[in-house]
Amino acid sequence: MLSKFKIVLVETSHPGNIGAVARAMKNMSMENLCLVAPKIFPSADATARASGANDILSSLERCETLEQAVADCHVVVGASARDRTISWPELAVRECAEKFVSAAFSDVRIALVFGRENSGLKNHELDLCQYLLRIPCNPDFSSLNLAAAVQVVCYELFIAAGDYRQPEIGDRGADPLATAEQMEFFYQHLHQTMQDIGFLHPDKSKTIMRRLRRIFNRTHLDVKELDILRGILRFSQNHNVKKGND
Amino acid sequence: MLSKFKIVLVETSHPGNIGAVARAMKNMSMENLCLVAPKIFPSADATARASGANDILSSLERCETLEQAVADCHVVVGASARDRTISWPELAVRECAEKFVSAAFSDVRIALVFGRENSGLKNHELDLCQYLLRIPCNPDFSSLNLAAAVQVVCYELFIAAGDYRQPEIGDRGADPLATAEQMEFFYQHLHQTMQDIGFLHPDKSKTIMRRLRRIFNRTHLDVKELDILRGILRFSQNHNVKKGND
Repeated sequence: MLSKFKIVLVETSHPGNIGAVARAMKNMSMENLCLVAPKIFPSADATARASGANDILSSLERCETLEQAVADCHVVVGASARDRTISWPELAVRECAEKFVSAAFSDVRIALVFGRENSGLKNHELDLCQYLLRIPCNPDFSSLNLAAAVQVVCYELFIAAGDYRQPEIGDRGADPLATAEQMEFFYQHLHQTMQDIGFLHPDKSKTIMRRLRRIFNRTHLDVKELDILRGILRFSQNHNVKKGND
Repeated sequence: MLSKFKIVLVETSHPGNIGAVARAMKNMSMENLCLVAPKIFPSADATARASGANDILSSLERCETLEQAVADCHVVVGASARDRTISWPELAVRECAEKFVSAAFSDVRIALVFGRENSGLKNHELDLCQYLLRIPCNPDFSSLNLAAAVQVVCYELFIAAGDYRQPEIGDRGADPLATAEQMEFFYQHLHQTMQDIGFLHPDKSKTIMRRLRRIFNRTHLDVKELDILRGILRFSQNHNVKKGND
């Protein structure tokens, strides 16, 4: 059940934190770790702090970009300080665990993404996330150590998996959810269409695309729905108005 | 409410762990730290890992024995590996937090005692404890890092203290959610546009519109997002492709 979760660390600076994350994961029966462009790895510091969780370090996945790391995941959750300038769906960590450990998401792979120790996730990385994960904490001292944050998240997942009872049916249909990679192709198509129909001003393009991503990211499209939306985009691109009626 | 809890560390070996504990405590609005015969303290490692929680390090209490550390406490809870030879009342960490944060224990001071990194608490120290604290975890890899264990415990205390609210759907940002009526106008506009661009076959119109409604109904659009989507619909309707390219 916990094997469908993947912990993704983006450009971690301190290898000791990578080892501490591996230990925290193994303490909570988590297995899948992915490093995106770590500054230093492998490292004796990582091995020392892993304190026996060597199997996690030796089987981890490495990627150059976050896009690659989450390409095979259906749900992407970013752990980052809240962006106050634009609205984003937030999940408290317990709520996140209860939601995604359940059977309604049983065939779904979920990435939990943790940013750099000092600067978190960048905007183009947040764009890949459907939710922001919030660890409730002291508002005046809210930056947890990376491994401490992973420990709390994995602990909540472990508890949720233990309390887990098989619900009767998932509330969605039989079509599988779209992966992050399929969503990226959709966003590229959407962006091109917005330009083709003259909706996107190049100078506003980033903000608008970010808002559109947020709408579709939080709706968990399945592959059939994605087909319909891309069909609509194709017809929009090719739509030939005989007479301008504006 | 959290000020009645005291975190007690017994003969900690690594000063870095003391700093990390201070950080974990402050992240969760805990203040009272007590060190029983630390191997090395103060230390630059402790200060570095505290990462700004210096007030906790500078105001901490030091004792020579656990007896002294818990002398002013009414309840003493030991975090230690389970002693299988003797039965002991056990509390899971969530249960412990919910029990002792409550008003029923409002005038009570509670010590949460963490043992040595490698060997935990000794028998004469366990004798001072009324309860053993259990952090649910992987039975085959159950030794958490000291600061990680403190982080989980303090997190549960913080949650139980209730300075925490599940984010609501409407919490995303400042823009109000669209009303049902506004959504109906949007769906009418969407339906008309699908016909204008030639996407909707009249005989399939109901099924497709139902699927599109499901997508947007579950995404909880706010009024600003609705404006953007209706803008896109207008541009689609008026899009004049000079040359058909299909």
